[in-house]
Amino acid sequence: MGDPQEADGVDERRFDLDVEGRVVPGILWTPTGAVGPRPLVLLGHGATRHKRVDHIVAIARQVVQNFEFAAMAIDAPFHGDRRPDPDADEFTVFSDFLVEWSRQGSVEDMVADWKATLEAVRDLDEVGDGPLGYWGLSMGTIYGIPFVATEPRVQAAVFGLMGLVGPTTERLATDAAGVNCPVAFIQQWDDSLLPRQPVLDLFDALASLDKRLHVHPGEHAAVPVEELEYSVAFLARHLM
Amino acid sequence: MGDPQEADGVDERRFDLDVEGRVVPGILWTPTGAVGPRPLVLLGHGATRHKRVDHIVAIARQVVQNFEFAAMAIDAPFHGDRRPDPDADEFTVFSDFLVEWSRQGSVEDMVADWKATLEAVRDLDEVGDGPLGYWGLSMGTIYGIPFVATEPRVQAAVFGLMGLVGPTTERLATDAAGVNCPVAFIQQWDDSLLPRQPVLDLFDALASLDKRLHVHPGEHAAVPVEELEYSVAFLARHLM
Repeated sequence: MGDPQEADGVDERRFDLDVEGRVVPGILWTPTGAVGPRPLVLLGHGATRHKRVDHIVAIARQVVQNFEFAAMAIDAPFHGDRRPDPDADEFTVFSDFLVEWSRQGSVEDMVADWKATLEAVRDLDEVGDGPLGYWGLSMGTIYGIPFVATEPRVQAAVFGLMGLVGPTTERLATDAAGVNCPVAFIQQWDDSLLPRQPVLDLFDALASLDKRLHVHPGEHAAVPVEELEYSVAFLARHLM
Repeated sequence: MGDPQEADGVDERRFDLDVEGRVVPGILWTPTGAVGPRPLVLLGHGATRHKRVDHIVAIARQVVQNFEFAAMAIDAPFHGDRRPDPDADEFTVFSDFLVEWSRQGSVEDMVADWKATLEAVRDLDEVGDGPLGYWGLSMGTIYGIPFVATEPRVQAAVFGLMGLVGPTTERLATDAAGVNCPVAFIQQWDDSLLPRQPVLDLFDALASLDKRLHVHPGEHAAVPVEELEYSVAFLARHLM
């Protein structure tokens, strides 16, 4: 765990954790001077992005500054600091992700990465064993639904920008049926990466009785600020 | 316009207006002691309900108490004080509505009722010519979309619990393409009155660039309080 970089009441610490021989790079955000357990929000980034992309940092800082929560993000395989070539172009990164997504064991490995980093930061006094939330769209939902399905401590989750498509379609459907916590699910109505129906089918497959789907016009990456603000408020409401 | 009944800073006034020979009963809610123009929210009730059903009164009081707006509701044909038999059972009222909905001219008449009552209350100093919002689900959408499509002064609208179904399907589709203001659209995912796809089709048909669809599990009438609160905040944001 690196030394904290402090800005406006938020400490940001870079860490690397060895998980089954994989080096998993992460960031932990906590209130400056925090003592004792608090709610923790896990942030799963999208394909071609990384643990410190703008909206991840923005959400992390909001939950820390506005609610005194902690937040954590890790890089997914072949993203961020898990790339040997940090300057790789977006097509290369996306292509590597599609290969990784198709690899048998990809989901299991990422779920293990989440669980191990989660346990590591919960050992810190200023994080501890508080309520747990998950936020992840697109690739953050591909890996997030399997994680949340096997992590009953998660009390609220934000998913979206994904549907019952791709190499892990069956796994996603099965794991969605194992998600029982309150969920906010985000869909972009004009998403050229995802047909509408499989997205609605994934929302439908979530077992949660308390779930809501928020749909906005526009492309995959055009989720409006309104929805990011809602997702933070949603998690705060359930974790406070 | 009757004398105001005041409660907790909200004046409620019952009125009847003659519109093309029809007596249109309405209620106007304003802040006690209000002077000068202010935003006005029009509230269209659902089939078998009336202008003073619980959630209509709750929304009216919220927009008055929290935002100093005015609010108005009118009874639809064969509802509330527009029934000769005020004790008619719900099946009778719903059956009468279906006959009325199928009547040529039904939409035109209700749009005329909205326009005439709107003009009447805007003549009052404490309502005046402020920003205009519309809130109406189910039957409130059946008549509300045609009204908003022809009333360019409406700056934000809440619709939902309706789809491209029933005797005015074509009219609804045409009028939805004439709605351009920001819209919040509410759908119940397990609505036994409405198949999912025609509801999504109606949301899709709205021309508004700024629109959002909020979907919740449950039956037609089970819209959660969360969504009623959101819809008030949505209107307030656009009318303030």
